[in-house]
Amino acid sequence: MEQFAGIKAYLAERAAKVEAALTRCLPAEWQVPSRLREAMAYSLEAGGKRLRPAFVMAAAEAVSGKAEAADAALPIACAIEYVHTYSLIHDDLPAMDNDDFRRGKPTNHKVFGEAMAILAGDSLLTHAFYLIAQAARQGAVSAEAALDMTEELAVLAGARGMVGGQAADMLGEQGITTIEELEYIHLHKTSDLIVFSLKAGARAGGADKRQLDLLETYGRNIGLAFQIQDDILDLIGDEKKLGKKTNSDVTQNKVTYPYLIGIEQSKAQVEMLTQEAKSAILEANLPLPEKLLEIADYLVHRDH
Amino acid sequence: MEQFAGIKAYLAERAAKVEAALTRCLPAEWQVPSRLREAMAYSLEAGGKRLRPAFVMAAAEAVSGKAEAADAALPIACAIEYVHTYSLIHDDLPAMDNDDFRRGKPTNHKVFGEAMAILAGDSLLTHAFYLIAQAARQGAVSAEAALDMTEELAVLAGARGMVGGQAADMLGEQGITTIEELEYIHLHKTSDLIVFSLKAGARAGGADKRQLDLLETYGRNIGLAFQIQDDILDLIGDEKKLGKKTNSDVTQNKVTYPYLIGIEQSKAQVEMLTQEAKSAILEANLPLPEKLLEIADYLVHRDH
Repeated sequence: MEQFAGIKAYLAERAAKVEAALTRCLPAEWQVPSRLREAMAYSLEAGGKRLRPAFVMAAAEAVSGKAEAADAALPIACAIEYVHTYSLIHDDLPAMDNDDFRRGKPTNHKVFGEAMAILAGDSLLTHAFYLIAQAARQGAVSAEAALDMTEELAVLAGARGMVGGQAADMLGEQGITTIEELEYIHLHKTSDLIVFSLKAGARAGGADKRQLDLLETYGRNIGLAFQIQDDILDLIGDEKKLGKKTNSDVTQNKVTYPYLIGIEQSKAQVEMLTQEAKSAILEANLPLPEKLLEIADYLVHRDH
Repeated sequence: MEQFAGIKAYLAERAAKVEAALTRCLPAEWQVPSRLREAMAYSLEAGGKRLRPAFVMAAAEAVSGKAEAADAALPIACAIEYVHTYSLIHDDLPAMDNDDFRRGKPTNHKVFGEAMAILAGDSLLTHAFYLIAQAARQGAVSAEAALDMTEELAVLAGARGMVGGQAADMLGEQGITTIEELEYIHLHKTSDLIVFSLKAGARAGGADKRQLDLLETYGRNIGLAFQIQDDILDLIGDEKKLGKKTNSDVTQNKVTYPYLIGIEQSKAQVEMLTQEAKSAILEANLPLPEKLLEIADYLVHRDH
């Protein structure tokens, strides 16, 4: 029996739930140009780990102590996947990372053209806020919680959050020389949305301020560890498992953790961040902390 | 004394208020890559009529019967200008309308590059939702009203609204042959955000359902009239006043109202839509309807 079989099955089950809901989130009766709808659906359905939605649901469960809290948080889980998907579409554009493939499939602009890819991204981002408002409308979360989530998503996905990280990445190309600059980029490009996911799920589960702060610590560290692990896997990983060409960052002379501090120290860093993340969860004294702890361990040992 | 001196002064005063607030809306203490902040500010400060914010404030005033309601609605007015500005930046991109100039200044991507222009647009859109949540946080509007606005902005700016209109415009290039297709584009590209502005301002002013519906009718008609008037001015207008090359739509073989139904019928259409808009306002029985009526008249007679 494989070590992480349990948590992998848990994540797969969550991913399946989210995937079943994702395209339904854009009402079928809405009059939307069909090519735009197709472009949105194409990237929503392109697979991936669905890690952020899983964090939303796991946090709701952990904080409330009830497994059914995960289902109530599903609209919020979809909202965050809309935001994540938009960010991938825009990041892949020729003017940005200029990627032709993602998860083994042609990128959005390769299939639908640049204009439609930009607009599909814009629509997905916009619709995430609709889904949060709807969650309140349908009674899944309180109006107050929905407003908190709206505000926090706007901060963590915007100029001071994820987009700020991507901008720093673009501006710093070739020019990054310190671990601090690289950390800034990863914290914003990756950790911010993970932090949002955890706090939104926790809010749906009724978390207090102290729990929210500790989940933020967990999310920041997990996000950073995840990104460093990605850098490591990109260098040593198996092409097929990753679904993209390994070593692509090195080919592009992209500055990574292994490049700056070496493979061994990068691995030690991932281990340390994971421990700090788990400590925060233990300190939060949640009724159902297990899944969040297991996800942390799984992510650091994953091979793709 | 010029016929529209009063309403022009009113709009100028509103525009000045919004302009003074616009860049302050992105907190100075936020850690944002400076180039991204500059790109956002560049387009926010690029002028324009500030018509949508004026609609927010005029509607708040009209519905509440109090001039000070306009000031309370200022954060919402800024939010809508953030959305409008993002849409202009993305529409101007090479993959979209490929415009080098807007309002006589180089477009965002010409100054900051495509990557930063895409990200500046993404940030502006995202921040609009922050501003709405903040308006509730600061007590300018109720939590319930802020949620309504969030939901409505997400609908009217998204796939079913403004972005849908832009997508239809992109997809239909050269291929539009009917007035219905053209109307669909204008209703979504232009009217939707104007409708949002009016309803958001009206909500801030405490409007009931019937008033909201009538303001929607006003907004839809005014938006369409505005756009047809733009098409007309583009054909016959004065280059300097418009701040862009006239006839550019014709040069690009862009299908317009005058192209489809002729100048005279286009003018008649503008007149009819304006009358319908004004009728809706009169029917709504608002305590201070004057400015909304005057704006309607002014827009149809403007020469730039």
